[in-house]
Formats: sequence, C-alpha cells, structure tokens
Amino acid sequence: MKSLTEYLWFNTPKRRDLVNITERIAGLVKQSGVKEGLCLVSAMHITASIWVNDDEEGLWEDFWALLERLTPSGKEYKHHLTGEDNGDAHLKRTLVGYQALLPITKGALDLGPWEQVFYAEFDGKRKKRVVVKIIGE
Amino acid sequence: MKSLTEYLWFNTPKRRDLVNITERIAGLVKQSGVKEGLCLVSAMHITASIWVNDDEEGLWEDFWALLERLTPSGKEYKHHLTGEDNGDAHLKRTLVGYQALLPITKGALDLGPWEQVFYAEFDGKRKKRVVVKIIGE
Amino acid sequence: MKSLTEYLWFNTPKRRDLVNITERIAGLVKQSGVKEGLCLVSAMHITASIWVNDDEEGLWEDFWALLERLTPSGKEYKHHLTGEDNGDAHLKRTLVGYQALLPITKGALDLGPWEQVFYAEFDGKRKKRVVVKIIGE
Repeated sequence: MKSLTEYLWFNTPKRRDLVNITERIAGLVKQSGVKEGLCLVSAMHITASIWVNDDEEGLWEDFWALLERLTPSGKEYKHHLTGEDNGDAHLKRTLVGYQALLPITKGALDLGPWEQVFYAEFDGKRKKRVVVKIIGE
Repeated sequence: MKSLTEYLWFNTPKRRDLVNITERIAGLVKQSGVKEGLCLVSAMHITASIWVNDDEEGLWEDFWALLERLTPSGKEYKHHLTGEDNGDAHLKRTLVGYQALLPITKGALDLGPWEQVFYAEFDGKRKKRVVVKIIGE
Repeated sequence: MKSLTEYLWFNTPKRRDLVNITERIAGLVKQSGVKEGLCLVSAMHITASIWVNDDEEGLWEDFWALLERLTPSGKEYKHHLTGEDNGDAHLKRTLVGYQALLPITKGALDLGPWEQVFYAEFDGKRKKRVVVKIIGE
C-alpha cells in the first residue's frame, strides 16, 4: 500500500469564499504514484467545508443565498456567548459537509464531467488547513 | 490490495426519483473478492445524491417535501442565467450529500439493519453515472 | 494491509443527545496498529448521525435549534402512517450526514485543532450501533 499526506493552507481575504482546489488535488494524486485508491479531502477547521459541484458563478451565488437563508450570519447564536461571532459558520459546515472522498482510477482523479472540488470558507481572513490523505496501490 | 471500479448508469423516467441500489452494490462487493475493506459509492453528476436511509415510501415523501421546502424547484436561481433550469437540483445535492462509504466485513456489506442505499435523482430523464470504488483485501 | 472493525453501542437516556466519542475512536486507532490509513465512523441506525465539530455547549444548542427549525419534531410526517413517530429523526440524519472518514497519520488520528467526533442521537432511549472500520498499514 502506498500513501501520501499533505496539508493545504488557506488564508482567504474575504470572510466567505470558494476556492477551486481540483488541480492541486490532481497534482497530489500524480505525486503519490497511486494508480487505484482513494483520496480524502477534509477541512480541518470546523468553520469550513469541502464542496464538490459546478464551476459556475451563478450557482455560487445560489449556494451562498441558500446558506444565508438556512443559517443567517446576523443571528444571535448561543455559541457567541463564548465571545465568538461565527456560530453561523459552524452550522454552514454542518449542512454542507466537510469532506470529499475522491476515487483514483488508472493514476488519476475519477471525477464526473462537471465535478470540481471547492474549499468553502465560512470564517476566513485567517490561516486554516485542509488535509489530503491518499491511499492505494 | 484488491480493487474494483464500476460505473452504474441511470436514466430515470421521472425528473426526481429514488432508486434502491443496495443489491447492485452488494453484488459488486462479492465480485471484488474483498473480505475487509471500503466501498465508495459516489454520484458523478452534480445534480444527484446518494442517500442511505429507510426503504419506506412515506419517508420518501417526507424526504421530497423537506427538500422542496428548503430548495424549491420553482425559484429563480442565478444559475438559470446560464440557460439551465436545475439550480434547485445542485442545492439539493449540496444538502443531502453525494457519497456513501460502506464498510466491507467478512466479504459482505456491513450495513445497519434498516440501512438501504439509494440513488437520489434531482434532474433526471437523462443518462447519468455513479462510480463504485472498492478497495481492501 | 491491516484492518480493524469495531462496533460502539449507545443507549442514550435522552431522546436527542450528543456523545463525544473522539477518545474511543483514538483508542481503536492505537489498537489497530495502523500507521497510515483511514478510519471510517458510521452510524448504522437511520435516525442518528456522526458530527465533527466543536466541543462547546452553546454551539450544541445552536445545532439542535437549527435542526428543530429545519426538521421540526412535532410535524405530521408521512412516515408516521407506519406507526412510527420519528420522521424528523430520519430527516435530521439526512441533513447532518451519518459518517466521518478520519485520516490516520503516524499512528494517530489526524484531526484539526478543534475537531471532535460526536455521535448525534435523534431518536434514543434504545440500543443503537456505530461501526468503526480502520484500514491501512
């Protein structure tokens, strides 16, 4: 069994942002030498997600509108009694999910025709990490 | 390490549909010869999900009612400015998730007593794929 | 390839509850002897979730408030025509997700600084299981 572990660092200038990381992941898969296996992409901070969807700006607006509707950022959350102001960000991660497991076939990411992998930041302007863990043969 | 990769094709007659694929996945696990491992089931199109829940028709209605309430299909989404009309389907996938990772123990799917694996179609009437990736020993 | 399969049993005194299982999972990883690999944690009952987030009580209240708002427990669900009264619990699992895949690096769980793994019970007061499946080398 081969494995590769890598950490991607983010520090988005905006508090909420989407960053397409598909090419970076594809590069790590090549680097790993794994031909058949699995590639885990997981947001290590609890106010960020991994989102696999369309590389289309209109949809991104719909994504943010949905999340703002379901988990508004202006609300008074109990979590804010700790001094934090990012309760909505924890809940956005809860709804979107924070991991993707990407199949590796014949040495490459085995994605659908429009699947793109995004880092979704809900509380940015600080250094945060994503772990990429590849295993296989 | 053994591995098996297979693609399941779907072309549902209805725009929104649930298809129980548990037996097909179980058959692939047997075919793979893997005794201890993991089986990834992942919707390759960005307007479909994998849903692991109950094989009960009333619950399916509740599932559709919830999704229609949170991500209504009649809304004017920004994504529609591209000419598409399936903005809600992208968002339904976002909330439900699009993957399941099924444990394989002693050569069989290791599911709970009522866990059934469904392909959830949010924008059907066209050919779409699910990738099944099995790794283990 | 090494593997370890274990089942964690729960029987929460409250109908809805969060149980921090991070240490139990970490113990199983050590026991497995896996140095580089993946650890699947998956709720085997269809009215429970796995939630990876903050160990902070205020946030837990926000979690329950969000879920009660999106999938109220008092509603008349079609699923209740079967005699069940837990339709909301099935839907809560649908939104939160029911699995986490934890990377194992250098023999230990490779989690972010605040990531804690919770069993989220939506219909407790009965015996229910979580499967932990570890593979790697």
